[in-house]
Amino acid sequence: MINSNSYFEGNVLSLGYTTAAGKSTVGVMEPGSYEFGTGSAEVMTVIEGEMEVVLPGETESKMIGKGEFYEVPANSKFQVTVNVQTSYLCQYS
Amino acid sequence: MINSNSYFEGNVLSLGYTTAAGKSTVGVMEPGSYEFGTGSAEVMTVIEGEMEVVLPGETESKMIGKGEFYEVPANSKFQVTVNVQTSYLCQYS
Repeated sequence: MINSNSYFEGNVLSLGYTTAAGKSTVGVMEPGSYEFGTGSAEVMTVIEGEMEVVLPGETESKMIGKGEFYEVPANSKFQVTVNVQTSYLCQYS
Repeated sequence: MINSNSYFEGNVLSLGYTTAAGKSTVGVMEPGSYEFGTGSAEVMTVIEGEMEVVLPGETESKMIGKGEFYEVPANSKFQVTVNVQTSYLCQYS
């Protein structure tokens, strides 16, 4: 089954599925600023668009563009700001 | 706005959005065989999983794996078979 998820009043939508390597989602973020919390560790890859990300324990944000990725440890929070509709792949470990 | 789309009784779900380059969707296909029809030309990229594709005017299928893409002309039909949950990016020109 494909799992449809909606966050932040529909401003972030994702589709969850399973691969041989584990669980993943592909999703789209509307422009805005969001705080996410991880359960397991995640690898986030920008498919199209761009994210400004503040990772756990950091104060400086960094820009993650198309094709680039960042890793978020388990059980932590991170902030994401997008200025254009941005699609992403999230791989859970 | 992010557009949620469901095809083939929920076996193919996608999320539509717009970039500077035009319209795109990210989506997930359940295992199965599907025939799609294009309006405008499309570039389909496999994000995770694998697709066996028969392009318009061809009889031989070809396997399109993770990170690979294929192009489909406007106003044409193509067949896709997937054996595992497969995520994709579709860029409309």
